[in-house]
Amino acid sequence: MMNPNSSNPIGVFDSGVGGLTVVRALMERLPFENIVYFGDTARVPYGVKSVETIAHYTTQIAEFLLAKEVKLLVVACNTMAAVASQVVKDLSPVPVLDVIDAGALGAIATTAKKQVGVIGTPTTINSNAYARAIHQYEPEVRIFSQACPLLVPLVEEGWLDHPVTRLTAQEYLKPVLAQDIDTLVLGCTHYPLLKPLLQDVVGPGVRLVDSAEAMAEETAALLTEMNLSNPQRTAPHYDFFVTDVPLRFQTIGERFLGRTLSNVHVVKW
Amino acid sequence: MMNPNSSNPIGVFDSGVGGLTVVRALMERLPFENIVYFGDTARVPYGVKSVETIAHYTTQIAEFLLAKEVKLLVVACNTMAAVASQVVKDLSPVPVLDVIDAGALGAIATTAKKQVGVIGTPTTINSNAYARAIHQYEPEVRIFSQACPLLVPLVEEGWLDHPVTRLTAQEYLKPVLAQDIDTLVLGCTHYPLLKPLLQDVVGPGVRLVDSAEAMAEETAALLTEMNLSNPQRTAPHYDFFVTDVPLRFQTIGERFLGRTLSNVHVVKW
Repeated sequence: MMNPNSSNPIGVFDSGVGGLTVVRALMERLPFENIVYFGDTARVPYGVKSVETIAHYTTQIAEFLLAKEVKLLVVACNTMAAVASQVVKDLSPVPVLDVIDAGALGAIATTAKKQVGVIGTPTTINSNAYARAIHQYEPEVRIFSQACPLLVPLVEEGWLDHPVTRLTAQEYLKPVLAQDIDTLVLGCTHYPLLKPLLQDVVGPGVRLVDSAEAMAEETAALLTEMNLSNPQRTAPHYDFFVTDVPLRFQTIGERFLGRTLSNVHVVKW
Repeated sequence: MMNPNSSNPIGVFDSGVGGLTVVRALMERLPFENIVYFGDTARVPYGVKSVETIAHYTTQIAEFLLAKEVKLLVVACNTMAAVASQVVKDLSPVPVLDVIDAGALGAIATTAKKQVGVIGTPTTINSNAYARAIHQYEPEVRIFSQACPLLVPLVEEGWLDHPVTRLTAQEYLKPVLAQDIDTLVLGCTHYPLLKPLLQDVVGPGVRLVDSAEAMAEETAALLTEMNLSNPQRTAPHYDFFVTDVPLRFQTIGERFLGRTLSNVHVVKW
């Protein structure tokens, strides 16, 4: 492991715009850190692709960000973290954090009953990665997981508080809520935008773990521990690389980021 | 234009599995034709990508099928047909048919009031391609179109007759139905699977135009006219090329095709 320069940016990547919820949490938690974001908008969504394809794309993106001299890699995409996190760790000379590990730590800190629900894309859920990550720290926790393939398109449609979204969430969460959980991990970067609706559906007895916020906490801890916090106290620089500028990109991106999206560069692969 | 061999296969392509509804209609209408299908399952969906990216991918696929010596190219993807049909026509030495042209002809044959609704993905609808195709044949027709981004994920989830799908369809179709249409074009290859539900939502006064069936009719007419029908009366050969074998591919593919899906080959790009 090389010793990166502490003023270098944090590299964050995702299959599309979803990882911007992680960037937003990082901006709020670490206001002096420079960030380079990569969103593979031409090939999104990863949640329905095979493991081999996801590993291949993930490698390509990690190498792109390493060439930008990032001091830390953040795998913001749950699907990539679920099936290709080790691939990134094997090739990276700088530390690698992933949202699943962050979400697992958040779940353990939250659950009292040791009964945790996890929702995500089909690939994330089928990989069983959250269960493995949680059990690695706390083997006693019982985990109930549910794939929710329609929640990503509902968020991208902007139906954040719509009867269709409510009905869909109720249908997906019915089996999980039948299990007496006290914690629900939002295992997809799109889901933080549905927090008010999901909190309503699960009721006051269940606490939501937002993996974007959990990731910002873990990143802050790692930077302090490794003495890698940016010493400069000036306005940071943010760069966004995408493989395509799809329809409604600006609107959706800004909804995720919670502010104006500028410095967007298109990479053609 | 070269003179293709009439026993050569028909080449059909789509961004994913949706075009299998066109293959199914072709198998039923033309039971002695060999078919080679290409589905770009690694890069699906195209409906949210930029025009440049779609044109680039479409060229790559058309060239792949031409190398398989197809006698005819069928652009089964509405999004590709909407924004990249001319690109295919420019490069192809064999005839090219596309679903939008087929759907437009179907709409003109169906409407009495000359008031037509069109539903499709955002890219298809924003391209205005159905309106242009219909007006080219019949400038008097009034067209009311509506993007329905959630219908594709709902079909892929298998919620073909589900309250969520019904509520979503009602919401999308409300403005179109307010326009006194008598015909609704299903401008996406996924939508034929929702025909019973959509017929219910639009009521008996509106006739649905299934662009897969319209395409099979147009293909049959062209083969006869150009003397390109396969003279062999033996069981035809079907080949399916895909760029990825995603989760649930077999299940979803067979739902679209209406029969067992075999001879599936993976092309790695």
